[in-house]
Amino acid sequence: MNPVLVEVTRGDTLESQHRGAFCVCDNAGNVILSQGDIDLPIFPRSSIKAIQALAMMECGAADAFDFSDEEIALSCASHGGEVQHTGVAQSMLNKMGLTKELLQCGSHWPMNEEAGRSLAMEGETPSPLHNNCSGKHSGFLAYLKHMKVTPKGYTEIDHPLQQAIKAALEEVCEVNLDDAPVGIDGCDIPTWALPLKNLAWGFAKYATPEQSFSNERASAVKRLTHAIFAHPYMVAGKERYDTTLMTAFKGKVFVKIGAEGVFTAFVPERGLGIAVKCDDGAFRGAEHILTAVLEDLGVLSKDDFIKAGVEDLYATQLKNRKGKTVGEVRRAY
Amino acid sequence: MNPVLVEVTRGDTLESQHRGAFCVCDNAGNVILSQGDIDLPIFPRSSIKAIQALAMMECGAADAFDFSDEEIALSCASHGGEVQHTGVAQSMLNKMGLTKELLQCGSHWPMNEEAGRSLAMEGETPSPLHNNCSGKHSGFLAYLKHMKVTPKGYTEIDHPLQQAIKAALEEVCEVNLDDAPVGIDGCDIPTWALPLKNLAWGFAKYATPEQSFSNERASAVKRLTHAIFAHPYMVAGKERYDTTLMTAFKGKVFVKIGAEGVFTAFVPERGLGIAVKCDDGAFRGAEHILTAVLEDLGVLSKDDFIKAGVEDLYATQLKNRKGKTVGEVRRAY
Repeated sequence: MNPVLVEVTRGDTLESQHRGAFCVCDNAGNVILSQGDIDLPIFPRSSIKAIQALAMMECGAADAFDFSDEEIALSCASHGGEVQHTGVAQSMLNKMGLTKELLQCGSHWPMNEEAGRSLAMEGETPSPLHNNCSGKHSGFLAYLKHMKVTPKGYTEIDHPLQQAIKAALEEVCEVNLDDAPVGIDGCDIPTWALPLKNLAWGFAKYATPEQSFSNERASAVKRLTHAIFAHPYMVAGKERYDTTLMTAFKGKVFVKIGAEGVFTAFVPERGLGIAVKCDDGAFRGAEHILTAVLEDLGVLSKDDFIKAGVEDLYATQLKNRKGKTVGEVRRAY
Repeated sequence: MNPVLVEVTRGDTLESQHRGAFCVCDNAGNVILSQGDIDLPIFPRSSIKAIQALAMMECGAADAFDFSDEEIALSCASHGGEVQHTGVAQSMLNKMGLTKELLQCGSHWPMNEEAGRSLAMEGETPSPLHNNCSGKHSGFLAYLKHMKVTPKGYTEIDHPLQQAIKAALEEVCEVNLDDAPVGIDGCDIPTWALPLKNLAWGFAKYATPEQSFSNERASAVKRLTHAIFAHPYMVAGKERYDTTLMTAFKGKVFVKIGAEGVFTAFVPERGLGIAVKCDDGAFRGAEHILTAVLEDLGVLSKDDFIKAGVEDLYATQLKNRKGKTVGEVRRAY
């Protein structure tokens, strides 16, 4: 059973708690730090979008359509559906001469509630552009168009695109997924479960692309990383952990959230990859587990968070409706 | 450590899980059914609004201001901030000749996101009426005006209103709170922690008011219960567990959610009280724990949920953005 890693207090009293597991690996697959079960397969969900984007990068589609760094970053995003995000997704489609109706991710009101209200104020309803995965799906369409592969059924497990994604995930994370548990993700594509250890290993390789990959893949990984570090707003958005952390500590840590309490991360200067799963699926749990891991690795200290003005990522102050601090979310170990 | 009571699957695979505790008591305080730690004090949060409303009922304020059943139900609500709710809160204030500026609960965008977007479409921003606790605070103002007690500082722990609430909680739940952990709730009033067992005991007494209380209190409890059973939309709102369950099974079970994964409930026909706490604070966890308890007590069967067309309360089907069923939230024991 996984340990309690995060606690939520009210006044001086424990109110709730989050259990979970994490793993830190180097690019040889050595476990540097871990807690909990790192061998149990977990669904990585959106935390592997930077792996799912490899097909687009490696086939030359991003260059063929002249995608900007912002657009490349959005192809790895779980974005808030803010106008900044939908505009960039639309721009990707424009460059390909495609329309949003081709995006097979489905529609939902923007994850960012303020963006949802703004949309409603304009008398609009959400389109697939507002789906948090619209950048990823635009990247999928770029791959398909450039490779002259039919977009028909591109979210299905047997489609060449999903098989290419599976192969990339297997290679990057050093895992065979033929018998892995598989589910359907929120945006309708398959999600294969893999052990936390392999997820951390894969991102350790992302931290050290030249040592870990062929020239072609290393080049793709470096461009994806460069684009995300340059435009952290694109991968998440307003008041999101990913964006706030990567904006405050530019180039120091790559972080990517996944649904149901998953995080992947890597630290280029240390060559380390990190994977986190909060047992109960809570984002606040996953975020504070990741913060604790970064602290324990000596990558970011409490002082670093305070100096950068993002102390809430270190220990989130819970405010009530009158603005009074009534509790805290923080590491529990 | 509390057991795993709820599981979240994707495909055939476990993705997340929720631990927690529950207790079922009769009105003598006998534990009929339980799992987990029922002696650890937990913050009941909004799950005790029907106890917090006793002061208003017992002093005669509700009658003096001619509050309707809808208004009485709203005084026990954590509502969605929908127009139905804000209208009733405004009506309570009108009957007292007071304005919403006196409500000290603070403002927030409606909990119901659709209601928030509707508000934005009208070019409005939230007022204290949209706060999910506006009915409760309107009830507080009724008590204060009727009793000629100053509203100044009415959310403070030393104010006579909060001390009256504390005394009612102690009497109903058979617990002394003088040394209990205390925190500040979302709407700025104190919240005292008490064991799950006492919370269940208190609501067993609500299930059997004539056996458990003085005539005055029994009468207040019966009117509160009657109002909530008659107007379940008032206590929560659209697509909320409380409202859906009480609408489907009219008069069978009283249920009330509290923040951070708490539920209280009682079953009048069985004379039983129930209290639930999900360790990690998740609503979905607390909801499915309560469903499982109702099933185990023989109060509601899986078939009952299906026949009433509310099978999602029994096992929630998780749909993705394309409307495809991709997983389930369900009892795990």
